Amino acid sequence: MHPLDEAIDLKLAAPGECMGATHPAYANMVGPFGGTTAAQLLQAAWLHPDRLGEPVALTVNFAAPVADGQILFLVRAARTNRSTQHWIIEARQGDETVATATAVFALRRETWSAGEARMPQGLPPADALERMQLKGLMPWPQRYDMRFTEGAFPSVFDEQEQDHSRSCLWVRDEPARPMDFASLTAMSDSFFPRIYVRRRRRVPIGTVTLTTYFHADSALLAEVADRHVLGVAKALNFRNGYFDQTGELWSPEGHLLASTHQLVYFKD
Amino acid sequence: MHPLDEAIDLKLAAPGECMGATHPAYANMVGPFGGTTAAQLLQAAWLHPDRLGEPVALTVNFAAPVADGQILFLVRAARTNRSTQHWIIEARQGDETVATATAVFALRRETWSAGEARMPQGLPPADALERMQLKGLMPWPQRYDMRFTEGAFPSVFDEQEQDHSRSCLWVRDEPARPMDFASLTAMSDSFFPRIYVRRRRRVPIGTVTLTTYFHADSALLAEVADRHVLGVAKALNFRNGYFDQTGELWSPEGHLLASTHQLVYFKD
Repeated sequence: MHPLDEAIDLKLAAPGECMGATHPAYANMVGPFGGTTAAQLLQAAWLHPDRLGEPVALTVNFAAPVADGQILFLVRAARTNRSTQHWIIEARQGDETVATATAVFALRRETWSAGEARMPQGLPPADALERMQLKGLMPWPQRYDMRFTEGAFPSVFDEQEQDHSRSCLWVRDEPARPMDFASLTAMSDSFFPRIYVRRRRRVPIGTVTLTTYFHADSALLAEVADRHVLGVAKALNFRNGYFDQTGELWSPEGHLLASTHQLVYFKD
Repeated sequence: MHPLDEAIDLKLAAPGECMGATHPAYANMVGPFGGTTAAQLLQAAWLHPDRLGEPVALTVNFAAPVADGQILFLVRAARTNRSTQHWIIEARQGDETVATATAVFALRRETWSAGEARMPQGLPPADALERMQLKGLMPWPQRYDMRFTEGAFPSVFDEQEQDHSRSCLWVRDEPARPMDFASLTAMSDSFFPRIYVRRRRRVPIGTVTLTTYFHADSALLAEVADRHVLGVAKALNFRNGYFDQTGELWSPEGHLLASTHQLVYFKD
């Protein structure tokens, strides 16, 4: 079983309640990688017997540090319409809420479609690039095969401020795993904090909220299979303890699979 | 009293409950403008006696059409930390949830700061441009003074598909009103649906979820006062019934006040 599938393997405890746990393969400096917490929150709605269709949007709020160990997920359909459904999900440890989420699921149908943003062109293919070095890093980045064309995780934190925080990379799960909503959700939090790329300075950071829009349905995700996808990320603004970052995940054929936005706390 | 202040004038009904109503000055085709609903949801947290600091992020999920009339807001601090606070808010009419929201509030402090995105340069000032024509439009756009430099609301729906959906405009409340979080929240939903700009075709649309990051604190918003701010909006992708749009709101001095993202349903 792939470690991501182990991480999202929630057990139904009662109607609207399921149990999960942090997974050591996705450990961060303290507690788990937020991407797997996000994937667990989405999975709690996905597993609900009343679920309608597939996710189109997910917002996760990281309310407090998640401790290693068990997590209780409370999940409730706040509204079910004919073709859309709105979920509220909470992650709890002991008596405390550690994360909240809302998700929109929908039944999609074929319509006029158009990509307006374009995938960066002229990049070398993944197999022409070297995989990112992982020595000394936490477990979670070791669960990704990342191959950067720009804006790599700094090999030294020399405090040389850069002009921008843009990154571009080929990325897939490691070990390889077929792309699905769980993988895409976790991957949308796999862009390193932009402040590290911009400042090459180690400062305490923490994502406070993450929103992902799923442009792909499961049929398009199945076409990606276990190949690398192209990730692009940048920040718009750093100001007084918070910065945003925005990312795109593209299929090798140039379909936008997800766009993702987050707001990150930093201490300077 | 400004109509926006009337619209967000909620009455405390019980601990964690307040009552509001739709406002005719912000009516949309059916029901109210989503921007005022978003501002009401934020205001419900803002008015709570346990509130900590100022908003840094808001996500609103438009779960169902809001009927003209009263709205009950249920508001709960899911988690309060030393410098951040996470809210869950629901808007109800009768026994039905019509919108859900999560908000992150924070006490901010001065840190290293840097704008990475730049405000578009070389644009004519607001007073050198004509205000958008409003003849035949719903009440809510009449509550804004919009002056476009690019990507105006189409004067005719001639179904001539455009290359892109980018818009750029100076915008302020009408009548003029000092900028604050309520105004900024509503304004973040004031960008017309990108599909109208792109396709010049009238199709049924509805925002399903809206996320706004507040880069400004109240001191910076106070500096804007009642002047126009610069809005920029674009779509990334239109696919099978949903498209996203992303916007920025800039102070006249070039500070990013808010970045905002939404996912919109469309019927083709």
